[in-house]
Amino acid sequence: MNARILALGSTRSCTAAIAIALFGIVSLSTAAWAQAIQHDAEHYVLLHQYADAWAKEDREIDQKLAEIRKRNGGKPPNIVYILIDDMGFGEFGIPELSKIRGSRTPNIDDLAKEGMAFTRFYAENICTSTRAAMMTGRYAVRTGMELTKVTPPEGVGLSAEEVTIAELLSDAGYATHHIGKWHLGDIKVAYPTNQGFDYASFAMHNQVSYSFLTRDAELDAKTTSFTEQAVDPDYGLDKSFRLYDWVNQVEGKRNGPVTEWGIEQGQRPDRELYERVNERFQEQALESLRTLAEGDKPFYLNYWPMIPIAVLRATDDSRCLTPNCGRWVDAMAVVDTYIGEVLAEIDRLGIADNTIVMVMGDNGPMKQELPENGIAEWLFRGTKGSALEGGHRVGAFIRWPGVVEPGSVAGDMIFVGDLYTTFARIAGNMEGIPRDRVVDGVDQTALFLKGDTNGRRDYVHLYEVDQLKATVKQNMKIHWPAAGVNPALAGIYNLYWDPREEHPLKSQGVWSGTSFARMFAQHRRLKDKFPDWEAARGMPYEDVSNLRPETAKMLELWQRVYGDAKDVILGVESAGN
Amino acid sequence: MNARILALGSTRSCTAAIAIALFGIVSLSTAAWAQAIQHDAEHYVLLHQYADAWAKEDREIDQKLAEIRKRNGGKPPNIVYILIDDMGFGEFGIPELSKIRGSRTPNIDDLAKEGMAFTRFYAENICTSTRAAMMTGRYAVRTGMELTKVTPPEGVGLSAEEVTIAELLSDAGYATHHIGKWHLGDIKVAYPTNQGFDYASFAMHNQVSYSFLTRDAELDAKTTSFTEQAVDPDYGLDKSFRLYDWVNQVEGKRNGPVTEWGIEQGQRPDRELYERVNERFQEQALESLRTLAEGDKPFYLNYWPMIPIAVLRATDDSRCLTPNCGRWVDAMAVVDTYIGEVLAEIDRLGIADNTIVMVMGDNGPMKQELPENGIAEWLFRGTKGSALEGGHRVGAFIRWPGVVEPGSVAGDMIFVGDLYTTFARIAGNMEGIPRDRVVDGVDQTALFLKGDTNGRRDYVHLYEVDQLKATVKQNMKIHWPAAGVNPALAGIYNLYWDPREEHPLKSQGVWSGTSFARMFAQHRRLKDKFPDWEAARGMPYEDVSNLRPETAKMLELWQRVYGDAKDVILGVESAGN
Repeated sequence: MNARILALGSTRSCTAAIAIALFGIVSLSTAAWAQAIQHDAEHYVLLHQYADAWAKEDREIDQKLAEIRKRNGGKPPNIVYILIDDMGFGEFGIPELSKIRGSRTPNIDDLAKEGMAFTRFYAENICTSTRAAMMTGRYAVRTGMELTKVTPPEGVGLSAEEVTIAELLSDAGYATHHIGKWHLGDIKVAYPTNQGFDYASFAMHNQVSYSFLTRDAELDAKTTSFTEQAVDPDYGLDKSFRLYDWVNQVEGKRNGPVTEWGIEQGQRPDRELYERVNERFQEQALESLRTLAEGDKPFYLNYWPMIPIAVLRATDDSRCLTPNCGRWVDAMAVVDTYIGEVLAEIDRLGIADNTIVMVMGDNGPMKQELPENGIAEWLFRGTKGSALEGGHRVGAFIRWPGVVEPGSVAGDMIFVGDLYTTFARIAGNMEGIPRDRVVDGVDQTALFLKGDTNGRRDYVHLYEVDQLKATVKQNMKIHWPAAGVNPALAGIYNLYWDPREEHPLKSQGVWSGTSFARMFAQHRRLKDKFPDWEAARGMPYEDVSNLRPETAKMLELWQRVYGDAKDVILGVESAGN
Repeated sequence: MNARILALGSTRSCTAAIAIALFGIVSLSTAAWAQAIQHDAEHYVLLHQYADAWAKEDREIDQKLAEIRKRNGGKPPNIVYILIDDMGFGEFGIPELSKIRGSRTPNIDDLAKEGMAFTRFYAENICTSTRAAMMTGRYAVRTGMELTKVTPPEGVGLSAEEVTIAELLSDAGYATHHIGKWHLGDIKVAYPTNQGFDYASFAMHNQVSYSFLTRDAELDAKTTSFTEQAVDPDYGLDKSFRLYDWVNQVEGKRNGPVTEWGIEQGQRPDRELYERVNERFQEQALESLRTLAEGDKPFYLNYWPMIPIAVLRATDDSRCLTPNCGRWVDAMAVVDTYIGEVLAEIDRLGIADNTIVMVMGDNGPMKQELPENGIAEWLFRGTKGSALEGGHRVGAFIRWPGVVEPGSVAGDMIFVGDLYTTFARIAGNMEGIPRDRVVDGVDQTALFLKGDTNGRRDYVHLYEVDQLKATVKQNMKIHWPAAGVNPALAGIYNLYWDPREEHPLKSQGVWSGTSFARMFAQHRRLKDKFPDWEAARGMPYEDVSNLRPETAKMLELWQRVYGDAKDVILGVESAGN
């Protein structure tokens, strides 16, 4: 991988030349960093039109950021970033919609009133890919992290070559903690403690391990044929089809070993364990807040709760927490109280004025759980995993007292990877953003500081795994046809008229075909120069200091069966195209 | 008809006895009017549970209403009721959703901020039926006004036996004006001037006459085969299949003749006429406001604009008024400026503090215009005419300074007919509500005065024409199966989980089947005692003082061809079941 990275690095000047050849000379008045970062092709189309205006605006923004720091004893703002599973747009934080759905998120509602609601926030369409894009500022497909693994172990993860937002902020003097879900790999290099966090307490896999893959869930018919009790002893030959006794949740410090906690030898996850782990993560989030607030440094706290994903109720079964009463909507009410506690703790610690709090969803609803868990596919069509708007558009809210206008609503397009670049800007480390790869994240500081209509993005490419399935530009969206189908037959949609993408335009969209084809070609052409990377691979659970004997035994089987065939079983053959 | 009404009247005491037999003795402490009004069966289920509490609350409400009057020199509040075509829930007034759709309704947005937004407002599902329910407080099917006619003339209309809200308010001392669309019939008894309005300027038919049935629309392929130019002279035998030269817009005073205005002899409607008529209605609405404000009486102004329905642009074609740019969404921006002018005039006249302003849609989007006109079927499934939520649920906002809490959101269920009873209560004329028929409208004054969660309705029956197609109770909805299908196979939906009614419940909804069947039986059983009425029938355009010669000629043909077969052609054979 290193050799390959170096090789890519060496093509950078060449690519810059090609970019100039493709798009003409970018105005020299563009801020130096804006020239130096390798954006996706389409961003240059905007730079040609706005480079001067944005460079001027950037000088104002730098001044404003300097003022904010001055007001706060020279410290850039703390960032608390709360990422919630599967909560697509409209699921929370908008009372007019919550009334219709019987949900209750008073704390997020308040956060929205005190800050800004985004109406056009594009995440990636599945947990792992959104988290990878957030951490790296890159479309997940560029990092090889475009697939979500379910049954552990995985043996893949975020490459050490990626420069995460945690690394950027660390370099800018931030203390960095990560609490909760991680879902970016179960190999050593991928642990958050090796990706820029001073401290992390995290789940080694996703919530499926705790919530779906249990005897409780099987008895409730929420999973089937998984536990040993449900395997036919006479015919179930392959013992590796289901692997048990994986590592659950661990904690550790930067570059050190990690320690599994909360589970005993011989214990298997169940509803109770999941409940306890959720509660413990919440305690740890509050503990981290206190630790971080006591320190001299500005801080970055990633808090990615495990609930609302809950195949079985994570709370007392005997009562509903919301009129909706669906398990995930009820669990969301718990998450909302968690967020309320976080906000109260921030207040109590006296750091609210210099702390950005962002709450957002990671992708749309989970198809397999519709509608029983109370979630819905409604304003948009499409679910987790889909390039339809419903897969990608999420609820998102930001509070930054004295900076972001309370009660504002931003209709600007923003991509989750933009937070990478924007947080780097706010923390004062744009220089740390690597220049040897494509970084898709656009700096949206102007949108945060100046509000609605000040965004710097009007397009996004939407992937399903490694396939570019759709491209959005302004209010127009094209569904890319399969290979061998003439693009003239592609469905083009006006998202203002047809947010659910149910009525492909007739003649009205024809004009955009050529422009979309150009975007596609340029996006692909840049990939010829900067190919997608592969995820890192390795032995799961390295550096877990207290591996349980049953975990070690499971790993032996995993290594014996799949050791020679990793390329296939890891599913990475589809990456790197 | 009169004889029949009398016959129905004579069964009243009998029905009350049956109601008591069905539901037990209603508490004697219920307010006298609440006992006396013949509600729909299901309302008694609630009265049995809340009669005492509501009677107590009603005494507080009477006190509060008396205080409001005292504050305003003894006058009950003016009511300005603005009803907008085809604007389902989420189409306007909620900025988070308007951003997504590229629409612009700043004045309605402001109204919402200054008042209350309803998230569960059920209209009927088509123009005529919603307007009939609003005017009479009854499900449209009870009035025979459940069908919308398109090609004029019609020869049917709202019966003189109906007691409209305008009549109730007149009797309570209100001055009453109606401006704009009417769509409740083209026969004399049905004119607003004969249904309780002191003055009316109204379209004799609906917007289709102006907007679809024109040569402009035909040249733009928005209608086909309608105008004489497009009829094959060799084969188009029947000259009455399309009738031209109908009466357009008229004005007049209570019980007097009406005069057609704005159209010359020999003129046919076109885009320009439609534009001029829309503008003139707006001027008349403002003129009415001034006239009414100058008078001593409290007033009721019905303003039912013709746009946003606009098959062709009603405004300058060369520019879009919104980023959405769909014709109806752009026309809605015009309606929004109209509403802005109305609100400004109310302010200028110094009557804002004692004037209720209500703005709402009459039904969901029009299927035939999706999505080209910029409207959408999105949060809910179903369009105009459908018993799906998308057909019935509309955006609705009310402002009542000093009474309705600014910026509030009500999740309570409310039916358009409830406004009838509620406005009568606020105006002080509950006694005028007729006792010889079923009045479905529930008094929702408590919801207006005390806000969210103070509603008095938790069910609604949803008709398509004269068929009961669905019933909603709380968050549960049943789609009634066709005749001959076992109700055990009916789809039952949890609207909190599944607002688009796409996933019929599995076992989860079984418990509600018996309760729903009971509701159905009781609703039908009450109809055995109070059968649905028929609409009134007659010769179109009576009392139009200046009938154009071509209109008279058309009527001759109409009378000659259909005079002997009215029962069939009027389509009323389906009513009265």
